[in-house]
Amino acid sequence: MPSRVTVRDIAAETGVSIATVSRVLNQSGSVAPQTRELVEQAVQRLGGRAPSPRGGSPKPVGGAVYLRCPYVLTDYFGLIVSSIAETLDRHGRQLVLNAGEATQHDQVLARLPAQRDLAGAILILPPETSDELIQLRSRRFPFVVVDPRTPLPRDIAAVSAAHFSGARQVTAHLVELGHTRIGVIGGPSEWLASDARLSGHAAALADVGILPDPALVRPVEPTIDQGRRAAGQLLDLAHPPTALVAFNDKAAVGALQAAADRGLVVPRDLSVAGFDDIDLSRATFPALTTVRQPLQEMGRMAVSLLIRLLDRHELEALHVELATELIPRASTAGPNH
Amino acid sequence: MPSRVTVRDIAAETGVSIATVSRVLNQSGSVAPQTRELVEQAVQRLGGRAPSPRGGSPKPVGGAVYLRCPYVLTDYFGLIVSSIAETLDRHGRQLVLNAGEATQHDQVLARLPAQRDLAGAILILPPETSDELIQLRSRRFPFVVVDPRTPLPRDIAAVSAAHFSGARQVTAHLVELGHTRIGVIGGPSEWLASDARLSGHAAALADVGILPDPALVRPVEPTIDQGRRAAGQLLDLAHPPTALVAFNDKAAVGALQAAADRGLVVPRDLSVAGFDDIDLSRATFPALTTVRQPLQEMGRMAVSLLIRLLDRHELEALHVELATELIPRASTAGPNH
Repeated sequence: MPSRVTVRDIAAETGVSIATVSRVLNQSGSVAPQTRELVEQAVQRLGGRAPSPRGGSPKPVGGAVYLRCPYVLTDYFGLIVSSIAETLDRHGRQLVLNAGEATQHDQVLARLPAQRDLAGAILILPPETSDELIQLRSRRFPFVVVDPRTPLPRDIAAVSAAHFSGARQVTAHLVELGHTRIGVIGGPSEWLASDARLSGHAAALADVGILPDPALVRPVEPTIDQGRRAAGQLLDLAHPPTALVAFNDKAAVGALQAAADRGLVVPRDLSVAGFDDIDLSRATFPALTTVRQPLQEMGRMAVSLLIRLLDRHELEALHVELATELIPRASTAGPNH
Repeated sequence: MPSRVTVRDIAAETGVSIATVSRVLNQSGSVAPQTRELVEQAVQRLGGRAPSPRGGSPKPVGGAVYLRCPYVLTDYFGLIVSSIAETLDRHGRQLVLNAGEATQHDQVLARLPAQRDLAGAILILPPETSDELIQLRSRRFPFVVVDPRTPLPRDIAAVSAAHFSGARQVTAHLVELGHTRIGVIGGPSEWLASDARLSGHAAALADVGILPDPALVRPVEPTIDQGRRAAGQLLDLAHPPTALVAFNDKAAVGALQAAADRGLVVPRDLSVAGFDDIDLSRATFPALTTVRQPLQEMGRMAVSLLIRLLDRHELEALHVELATELIPRASTAGPNH
């Protein structure tokens, strides 16, 4: 193997743990055949000794992975699903998709362990209760949850974005600009992410000695229309906020519309910030200040955790939180700018 | 069966042809077991005699359907994929997904007929050549193409939007407003849709005695950035257009940005129109005039055609074109408005 390629390179390329890559290279310990093959292919590819055959994706080498994402696949969910599809393809795993809002109330989880062709599952923002997920876990069916809606026990693998610190960053940004009355267009109150975001918001306010005002928080379904309505209510208060943070970019677009409805110029009269950094946030005028969620990386990490579960390796940290990043753009400025 | 429910209702509900529904109800002729079950379930549901059991989607009743969409699942592709996923779920068919840009050069088609668990495939904007699709057809593997990139022989089932008439409508709208120099940010020149859209544009101009000016056409990859660049080139011409039509809403957003870069106010100084009617088109300022593609319906129709192919019924019209609709919004107005 040429000296340039390291175990770390191969681990990064394949999503397989460094320990497992070492086991394959040293031909020691037990490694699932499909993982061995994946590592060996990556060694060849990275080492350049044998070019990967034209034709791309390998033939399926193990059971399929069931992906449940009971939502419309627009930017947010679509980007995660695309990333999962690409990564599974690289691992030679077939992806069985269950998607679309119509499937939201289907009770599919209980059936999964009985399906012989399935090796495991990835569940994105599952509408199922924690109890249902715990039950699936108790049947020893391997699965990973992306963006859990409710708190999960430690032995259920989960990947999410750093909601708390993302929300804290964006509120801190507004506080730094001089805002003290900041309205919140929050997500549904029963979502874990909504709760974490509100805590992050409160933490940033606390840093400058401000207590959050419950009258300035509106929990909604994060759509353009609901965001517009909630923003309208906040802007029509006797003592309205000078800035709004929204649960996602769509709700923030609604806030921009509510501002325009009232003749307010953003950011002169009102600052608006979103969350997600989907395409939409670059298409508005002014472009949205937002918090980037690492959607592609969330998909890759979910596959990586699942492959490790399938490989029967212990996972050291079952709950993975990926960093978010503040993207300041033109929709935020000081009050009375 | 209560008199309110007709054979037509059941056909509409299930996507199964009227003839087949009749065969099931009359218990005559040969019908695939899964289709029979689907129709019987719909009869129960619509007739209200036996409510569909809580639990939603039925167990898989036939081979899986392979869905290839080698693109990132943002609004356009994501909406079609969601609709296909929901419809297949209703038919009790498992969906095997191949998606993401990384899979674009994978040569998967040749392998499909050998995969025993697959009943058929749906290919969205396949990057494969017509020859490759014809070869797949010759192996008698059932598949349907959504939004074909190249012309296909009549015996390959295909669903697309009415590109010609949609483009004709939007140019006619601009001509009616008084525009005569209309720039076109077109799609890649080798795409069937690009060609059909240009023809529609030319037809609308011809209606008022104008020949299209080749200097006003820029074929690009339809992204925000490429749209911005192409629009900039058109606006920097010595004799620039007074209106721009873009291949999709993303490229139109780029055009709005190019206008803003040059201090042009839309629609006062420049009219801009998109295509697709994705969320983006309602988030811009001003909101985009666009042409709505029936993305959900394209997904449903693709499944319906495939189910009929699996059912071994003859398809009367193999190439289905679904109507598009002009959605006039605030980004278009008369020149020197």
